[in-house]
Amino acid sequence: MSSRLLDSLVTTDALAGVFSDAAVLEAMLRFEAALARAQAECGMIPAAAAAAIEQAAAAADLDAEAIARAARASATPSIAMVAALADRARRIDPAAGDLVHRGATSQDVSDTALVLLLLRAQPILAHDHARLADALVRLSDEHAGTVMLGRTLLQPATPITFGLKAAGWYAAIDRSWSRVRRAFEVACVLQFGGAAGTRAALGGRATDVARALASRLHLPLVPPWHTDRDRLGALVTACALYTAAVGKAARDIALLMQAEVGEVSERGGGSSTMPNKHNPSSSIAAIAAATRMPGLAAAFLGGMIQEHERAAGGSQAEPATLAAIVQGTGAAVAALAGAVEGLSVDVDRMRANLDATRGGALAEHAVMLLSTRLGKREAQAHVARALERAHRERRRLADSLADVPAVRSVLSDDELRDLGRPESYLGDAEAIRSELLGRTAAAALD
Amino acid sequence: MSSRLLDSLVTTDALAGVFSDAAVLEAMLRFEAALARAQAECGMIPAAAAAAIEQAAAAADLDAEAIARAARASATPSIAMVAALADRARRIDPAAGDLVHRGATSQDVSDTALVLLLLRAQPILAHDHARLADALVRLSDEHAGTVMLGRTLLQPATPITFGLKAAGWYAAIDRSWSRVRRAFEVACVLQFGGAAGTRAALGGRATDVARALASRLHLPLVPPWHTDRDRLGALVTACALYTAAVGKAARDIALLMQAEVGEVSERGGGSSTMPNKHNPSSSIAAIAAATRMPGLAAAFLGGMIQEHERAAGGSQAEPATLAAIVQGTGAAVAALAGAVEGLSVDVDRMRANLDATRGGALAEHAVMLLSTRLGKREAQAHVARALERAHRERRRLADSLADVPAVRSVLSDDELRDLGRPESYLGDAEAIRSELLGRTAAAALD
Amino acid sequence: MSSRLLDSLVTTDALAGVFSDAAVLEAMLRFEAALARAQAECGMIPAAAAAAIEQAAAAADLDAEAIARAARASATPSIAMVAALADRARRIDPAAGDLVHRGATSQDVSDTALVLLLLRAQPILAHDHARLADALVRLSDEHAGTVMLGRTLLQPATPITFGLKAAGWYAAIDRSWSRVRRAFEVACVLQFGGAAGTRAALGGRATDVARALASRLHLPLVPPWHTDRDRLGALVTACALYTAAVGKAARDIALLMQAEVGEVSERGGGSSTMPNKHNPSSSIAAIAAATRMPGLAAAFLGGMIQEHERAAGGSQAEPATLAAIVQGTGAAVAALAGAVEGLSVDVDRMRANLDATRGGALAEHAVMLLSTRLGKREAQAHVARALERAHRERRRLADSLADVPAVRSVLSDDELRDLGRPESYLGDAEAIRSELLGRTAAAALD
Amino acid sequence: MSSRLLDSLVTTDALAGVFSDAAVLEAMLRFEAALARAQAECGMIPAAAAAAIEQAAAAADLDAEAIARAARASATPSIAMVAALADRARRIDPAAGDLVHRGATSQDVSDTALVLLLLRAQPILAHDHARLADALVRLSDEHAGTVMLGRTLLQPATPITFGLKAAGWYAAIDRSWSRVRRAFEVACVLQFGGAAGTRAALGGRATDVARALASRLHLPLVPPWHTDRDRLGALVTACALYTAAVGKAARDIALLMQAEVGEVSERGGGSSTMPNKHNPSSSIAAIAAATRMPGLAAAFLGGMIQEHERAAGGSQAEPATLAAIVQGTGAAVAALAGAVEGLSVDVDRMRANLDATRGGALAEHAVMLLSTRLGKREAQAHVARALERAHRERRRLADSLADVPAVRSVLSDDELRDLGRPESYLGDAEAIRSELLGRTAAAALD
Repeated sequence: MSSRLLDSLVTTDALAGVFSDAAVLEAMLRFEAALARAQAECGMIPAAAAAAIEQAAAAADLDAEAIARAARASATPSIAMVAALADRARRIDPAAGDLVHRGATSQDVSDTALVLLLLRAQPILAHDHARLADALVRLSDEHAGTVMLGRTLLQPATPITFGLKAAGWYAAIDRSWSRVRRAFEVACVLQFGGAAGTRAALGGRATDVARALASRLHLPLVPPWHTDRDRLGALVTACALYTAAVGKAARDIALLMQAEVGEVSERGGGSSTMPNKHNPSSSIAAIAAATRMPGLAAAFLGGMIQEHERAAGGSQAEPATLAAIVQGTGAAVAALAGAVEGLSVDVDRMRANLDATRGGALAEHAVMLLSTRLGKREAQAHVARALERAHRERRRLADSLADVPAVRSVLSDDELRDLGRPESYLGDAEAIRSELLGRTAAAALD
Repeated sequence: MSSRLLDSLVTTDALAGVFSDAAVLEAMLRFEAALARAQAECGMIPAAAAAAIEQAAAAADLDAEAIARAARASATPSIAMVAALADRARRIDPAAGDLVHRGATSQDVSDTALVLLLLRAQPILAHDHARLADALVRLSDEHAGTVMLGRTLLQPATPITFGLKAAGWYAAIDRSWSRVRRAFEVACVLQFGGAAGTRAALGGRATDVARALASRLHLPLVPPWHTDRDRLGALVTACALYTAAVGKAARDIALLMQAEVGEVSERGGGSSTMPNKHNPSSSIAAIAAATRMPGLAAAFLGGMIQEHERAAGGSQAEPATLAAIVQGTGAAVAALAGAVEGLSVDVDRMRANLDATRGGALAEHAVMLLSTRLGKREAQAHVARALERAHRERRRLADSLADVPAVRSVLSDDELRDLGRPESYLGDAEAIRSELLGRTAAAALD
Repeated sequence: MSSRLLDSLVTTDALAGVFSDAAVLEAMLRFEAALARAQAECGMIPAAAAAAIEQAAAAADLDAEAIARAARASATPSIAMVAALADRARRIDPAAGDLVHRGATSQDVSDTALVLLLLRAQPILAHDHARLADALVRLSDEHAGTVMLGRTLLQPATPITFGLKAAGWYAAIDRSWSRVRRAFEVACVLQFGGAAGTRAALGGRATDVARALASRLHLPLVPPWHTDRDRLGALVTACALYTAAVGKAARDIALLMQAEVGEVSERGGGSSTMPNKHNPSSSIAAIAAATRMPGLAAAFLGGMIQEHERAAGGSQAEPATLAAIVQGTGAAVAALAGAVEGLSVDVDRMRANLDATRGGALAEHAVMLLSTRLGKREAQAHVARALERAHRERRRLADSLADVPAVRSVLSDDELRDLGRPESYLGDAEAIRSELLGRTAAAALD
Repeated sequence: MSSRLLDSLVTTDALAGVFSDAAVLEAMLRFEAALARAQAECGMIPAAAAAAIEQAAAAADLDAEAIARAARASATPSIAMVAALADRARRIDPAAGDLVHRGATSQDVSDTALVLLLLRAQPILAHDHARLADALVRLSDEHAGTVMLGRTLLQPATPITFGLKAAGWYAAIDRSWSRVRRAFEVACVLQFGGAAGTRAALGGRATDVARALASRLHLPLVPPWHTDRDRLGALVTACALYTAAVGKAARDIALLMQAEVGEVSERGGGSSTMPNKHNPSSSIAAIAAATRMPGLAAAFLGGMIQEHERAAGGSQAEPATLAAIVQGTGAAVAALAGAVEGLSVDVDRMRANLDATRGGALAEHAVMLLSTRLGKREAQAHVARALERAHRERRRLADSLADVPAVRSVLSDDELRDLGRPESYLGDAEAIRSELLGRTAAAALD
């Protein structure tokens, strides 16, 4: 039920279990049992046969390795699975063997099984997303007033609050989760079309059987989608967008945790050789999972141009790709949730890094103030010179500007004081934070 | 305004125009003019200066090549564009020069300009999608009763109708278009955050200016999204899913148009050297555009893990990628719309290809009928032998089966006749077709 | 040791074994044992301790699941593996525990272990490539004289030989294999750099230990490559190019095997429901594996921009991706080798499909002949009309042309006869075939 | 001849010119002129006609927009180009019109034209690579003795030299360039196969014409490769690996240039609004170009599974993708070359950042020394406690350790002094640097 070593960083234990051989077989067998029951319900096969098939399916003693091997000969695991189930059913009720998988096609069972696995994966992801979202909202609220450097192109920009930054992480991740949630709902539908998608083998009872089957599996009934993979594709790409948002927050944390920045710190994260090491291990695990997602999404998308009523290659590798994508998404969110829940924030260091710009973070402010009075070019020249002087003399921009009579004379005392106070140059930060957290609508941003 | 030669198959004339240098500059200038007007409206800058900026922006005589060259020095085209606009504005009103781009950041103008281009591209795509959707519905209705081979893994399966096939194309394409349409709506929002996303440079009037700017550009106002690219990412992936659905239909057409299959035929499509040639050129253009979409989507997704308040590399290549994706989508849908509108269907050939299976397409039917009476294994054996005999003796499966007393005795005359009639083995085809066309809900499938 | 069900079509049994947990642990332990021995050889640790470490490593009773779980906490499986090995070594020799992994870093063992697995995978791929290459050469030679339709844009073009086609498959696959082979050689090198790539922890004996370690593992010694992944990247992309070449041949086979074309046939390939079915299952498995390769390659490439002396996310997902790529490559080549070895070729059907063009495949020939005598436009017009007539009257182009006095009068009897003989219009086919098979150099093409 | 605005960061002026419409048409016309001359040389067409074709081709007044538009109707730009050239040739010599493009196919001219463009692009890339390689070697040599922090997982590790770091950049980039150079050589070959790759339309002189054509275009002659795109694919992937290596160095520079790190600084890089800003603009441009490369490579690879003798979609989008990849590669190398050539290095800051770890960078050293004497666990405990104390008391690890009698007593004075000197813990740094610069072979690493 566990992940494999090579995959350990791109899944979680719980999700590795969801896509394990036992779970795959169980889902396939559940389809076949439900199909038999549905046909019995519609009077197509004897109830006793359906009971035998269900009983055989419940035994769940199929040989996953043998089926995997047989899958390579027929390009589908379904044929060998059906044969094995039929053997077992026949031993219980001689008539039942012939009635396994009746009227269905290989892809009906493999696709529906995949859907059943997705339905098991969804709450695992939802749980970790909820943990992450809660932790981010708490973090944002706690640091609504924590002033820090905004950074653009990896260089100091103007001040922001850490609360705003965390709210930005939250909003992108939560917006992306909405897409994932909707995509799961849309994708988790019954596949049932028979040989060429008409359900012809079921004769006049086709629609009834389809409905009964959907009902038994608690799956919506839609037209067969053997070569229309857009619902799965939408789930795949929603996962890719979600992990990108997760990865963005994780990279920010890893950057803020650099020793030279030191503004936040993850719990844990030791090294195999260096006692001084304190690594952003969880963020890195999240980034790792996110890093391969664009390629994995492309791997799925690349198979979507499928031939006629069943693909000649495009869909046969989908399960492996889809399982990797869902597990990678789960690995990313679980890792980041852990990182954020245990994050310690060094408020003093944030202030110190701001102060280390010697007012550079407020240089734009100074230019905005001065340019209406002195003209933009002169304002820019004054500020640039004063900033240079401040760095040379280890003073602050505000003090350095105050020394220049032409500048001092056009600034009020309050303005001058504000040029030394990053908290006076936060603009709409708090209003935007509130909107990012969904507390105020865009339409009422104040 | 035209496409470049090397890009000719991955865009259309109209879309190449949307993303041309002139259009890009116009969109950027429109942002700056609206910003000035919004600030004048809020009393931040004189109305005369705003008028001068608007007038300078309208002149639209900027040197695209020079700006492109300067863009490489600063990793953004905005700085050079702003400088050039300020020069022009200053000539009209000396005070106006300093007031261009006031309080905004480079990415505010470049992102919003991109959004304005997307808004121009959307109706072009919508128009071609509507053409395609209409043509597919017509095609499906016209051929609701046209029986043809279903094909799975590129081999004959059971019968379907061409109307069902076309309805399947329609449903996947239309479902995918809904995602594209929604994604355009969500993505087309104002970008306006200033240096680090707080709009601090606008002082106390920040929110008012943001609202006025959004209103002037007819764009929704949302929190700054400088490093949160999920809305654009959702558009990108919706386009990828859409072109995949388009590509699937196009590949089906190219396959059906093979000389050996000959069931449909595009208009046009000559060769540079062979007079016998009649190529599926439009379908091929659609497939070509679709083929590179997974990679292009990955190219966009791969840049989404962006640092802090402005990316250090992840976003700077986005415009090129996004323009390629939207143009590729437009090229695909325009090409397929052309192919489908001009498609001729050879109903006789469809029937002939079905007949050429000598009843093989109904072999499943025969097994279904016989297995309840003779057991599945015996049924399969009889049908397999009869099918082989039918091929050898150039007869039909039904006739060949009728020669076998053990088989003949358990089949009624009607059943035997049906085994020779593909139209008797269409199952839910028409009901599913109706659902695919959105005429009946999944909940009422009959 | 087997593949998982969901991955069954994208690996082989042998390759699934290569990347199994047991194999991964064995490779890691082999590194640690060799490191200890190398250090003993250089006098850095006692021989007895090295023997104890080697003995502990040989026991191979580590708990893969526990290590996988611990890997998520530290973003590497190495730490838990080293701790478990040290425990075991300490039980054998109390001094040995502290000397496990001495001077190495986590990535030294994980990268080198990956390299050791690659070295086990290489001969498996090489074996199946050799099978495939042999089968293709045989096929090409056997059908050097088998004339068939060349097909461009899925439409009939001019004649080729099946021998030429098979030689083309061979040449692209074999050329691509050369890249894979070289890439394996270049990529399979020791990783050994210690904490930051200087091997400082080994003091003055660093170089000696590195050499001894390389020698014991039979791996070339190169500078540490912790964040320089181009050698692995070159292997990944070589695999992607190789599977593309394999996929091209597989798709050709699937297309040629369409019932309506019927020129080749794979062995095997049944359906779960339709007795008439004969699927190109092996080709489809090859296409499936090839379909996801571009995305998987992008997943690897997307992580290559790695920070400083050890990546913060870019490399941690590499093993999963790399294992998927190598296994997918192996699955593709094994599947196609099986398909080609068992391929039956229907020479008569090839001829029949050619004949069904009614000379269309020779229309270019007719134009070439006639245009020097009648001018190109008139020649094209004559041929087009004659071809249309031939189809209508179910005759051959040559006969139809012969009816036109203006045409007949400028053609010799031999020329007219050749217009009915595809084998007279094969150009350089045999010379090119010989070159594709490597029997004649490009420089001496005749 | 310039780049478009939207593409400005993903190309250079020079490369935008190489792939401009004028250059594309010139290359196509050059093929046709050379083909005519080659046929005249072989006696297949009159010399006067060849001269007329050459003259018409030289006039180069074709309408690129019209040809681009026509390309969409036939899925190739060649047909319209040939028609236009034939018209012009006919006006010069009435017989010449019919002899344009004789025996060739559309893809012969479009592929060969692409190859001719690649041959123009190669020296541009080579020139910028040489600049970059030279600058990196100089940088490495200049800083062979500049000690700095090694950083792993974005956290301080053990010391390295900046010379070693720059040598690592050089080695990966130069190794990757070798692949690009070889790939250009292999990919730049003549495409000439006629309708289905047999050159049948050229009759008995096919081989001679092929040779003469290859000779005139100075291109190697190889068998037709219409659907075998591995040589182009190898170029594409070599470019992707190269830009990844470039991107790694660029990201390192952007990280080292963070204000909080401050170890290196690019020239230039202003902001549109903040006077304090000094952005790593060139590195960012390089990262931007590199970021989309994995996706672009996948876009190419995704089209490589091509049907029969000419692709039905897979190849038609290649030129756009290939041009984007080569231009992106050129943009990346040009940007990084500029960054490195103008890089200033703050040696004092490097030392200060090292010192700020308070000896943490040497903690591994301390553990290595102490564990042979005190056992590993006790050594680790001592070092961890001493490091914590050093941070608390703002001292150095070495001093803090010296206060512990149990530790002090087992360390010599020299050892203790070395624990305070990062330069004493550089291991093989200089030897590895020399090897990375290609000055010593792996086989003689000392």
